Amino acid sequence: MKVNEKARAFRALHEDGLLILPNAWDAASAALIERAGAKAIATTSAGVAWSLGRRDGHGLSRDEVVQAVGRIAASVEVPVTADVEGGYDDLAATVGEVIGAGAVGVNIEDAKDDGTLFDITEQADRLRTARAAAVEAGLPELVINARTDVYSLEIGPPEGRLDDVLARAAAYAEAGADCLYVIGLTDLDAIRRISEECRLPLNVLAFPGSPTSAEFEAAGARRLSVGPLVAQAAYAVAQRAAAELLVKGTCTELEGGVGYGTLNSLF
Amino acid sequence: MKVNEKARAFRALHEDGLLILPNAWDAASAALIERAGAKAIATTSAGVAWSLGRRDGHGLSRDEVVQAVGRIAASVEVPVTADVEGGYDDLAATVGEVIGAGAVGVNIEDAKDDGTLFDITEQADRLRTARAAAVEAGLPELVINARTDVYSLEIGPPEGRLDDVLARAAAYAEAGADCLYVIGLTDLDAIRRISEECRLPLNVLAFPGSPTSAEFEAAGARRLSVGPLVAQAAYAVAQRAAAELLVKGTCTELEGGVGYGTLNSLF
Repeated sequence: MKVNEKARAFRALHEDGLLILPNAWDAASAALIERAGAKAIATTSAGVAWSLGRRDGHGLSRDEVVQAVGRIAASVEVPVTADVEGGYDDLAATVGEVIGAGAVGVNIEDAKDDGTLFDITEQADRLRTARAAAVEAGLPELVINARTDVYSLEIGPPEGRLDDVLARAAAYAEAGADCLYVIGLTDLDAIRRISEECRLPLNVLAFPGSPTSAEFEAAGARRLSVGPLVAQAAYAVAQRAAAELLVKGTCTELEGGVGYGTLNSLF
Repeated sequence: MKVNEKARAFRALHEDGLLILPNAWDAASAALIERAGAKAIATTSAGVAWSLGRRDGHGLSRDEVVQAVGRIAASVEVPVTADVEGGYDDLAATVGEVIGAGAVGVNIEDAKDDGTLFDITEQADRLRTARAAAVEAGLPELVINARTDVYSLEIGPPEGRLDDVLARAAAYAEAGADCLYVIGLTDLDAIRRISEECRLPLNVLAFPGSPTSAEFEAAGARRLSVGPLVAQAAYAVAQRAAAELLVKGTCTELEGGVGYGTLNSLF
């Protein structure tokens, strides 16, 4: 499938129902998640960072991200959307290069490394920069998921956050975003209100204890992802299996692994 | 610790007891396995390959292996030993470059990609080549783990395999190997005999259903690893969590993951 066509196919997945994206962090996880039935692959910047020995929060270099996205995109058939955090050293270059690596979507955050947010107009300009970079790269159809950290970073007084998100949603939509990602928001009434008032499809984060996908969908969410949680659960196996082997000398944590032949057949 | 000192420390870990190596495939798994108490980190070529979107069995390029080993070595304090399969396109270059990337040990196999083995003398020459490359790289102390696939590839009639291994062990030791890895061998009597007749410490592969580490140790094994099994078990989480999220819309498979703060503190 040509890249423009793939971007349009990815865009269409947001048009109704709920697009569920169990995030991948490397080639094998991406291929296995595709095989489990995912219609697209979203990366997790934190998972990618850890797998490469970096901290989350711009610990990766642009090159490392681009190469990781390239490996993932080369390992699956479905569309890939890349979490590029705040864009690393150069947002336009990052967007252009992840498109070159095979991504047809990006997540771009409004949080700065110091835990504050870019002003609304500043972030809207950054989203325009990303769109311009996509056009420049020959992919005007790039699906830009504008993430706001208003809830996750607890910006401002609680009673003002929904209005802040709605104002940001309007500005980000006007700047060319295709999807709004309100990470950390699980209040179904607030999700309902954002879904009604914002014309962008809404991405929510699910986690153990959050509403189920059916509840999020009934409240109006159109896209659901899990950040680094699949990576965190997978790495827990390394922790547990190593502890078992080192302390007890047994291998029960190693039971039920993906077959060697299955993994080898993915590539 | 200087690299030569680290190599000597790794070598000393083979001198008594059983060195248990739950194999790592990327930076995060290595750091978590170290944190669980491993005294050294052994890589799994299959796990490294899959994480990078390649098949096991020389699907990786030399550069990819060297970079992966470098990321792992940069993420842990303990010695790192690199599984370099048969040495990729150039055994001497591979050995030199993984040393440059921080490895103080290597696994080198006697299996060819066609499922046959190198002749004993040919493989002994290859081990001499590896040692020469280590000397050239300034690390004569490199711990060379000579792997034989006599059992795993079922070479020759079953009744002849133990003698084949003993002959190979003698030749590999003479050629400068420091450890003998008989992958696929779980017969404790055979392990006892090899441990008695071969002067090299013996590495065995453990897996669910194999003898326990205590049984292997009692039979004389000095080093135990698990190949790609930790990676396979970890990737099964991606498979199960994705299936659960996509089919049921719930996150129970994501419970019990490694904490975000823990993972971020590793690097």
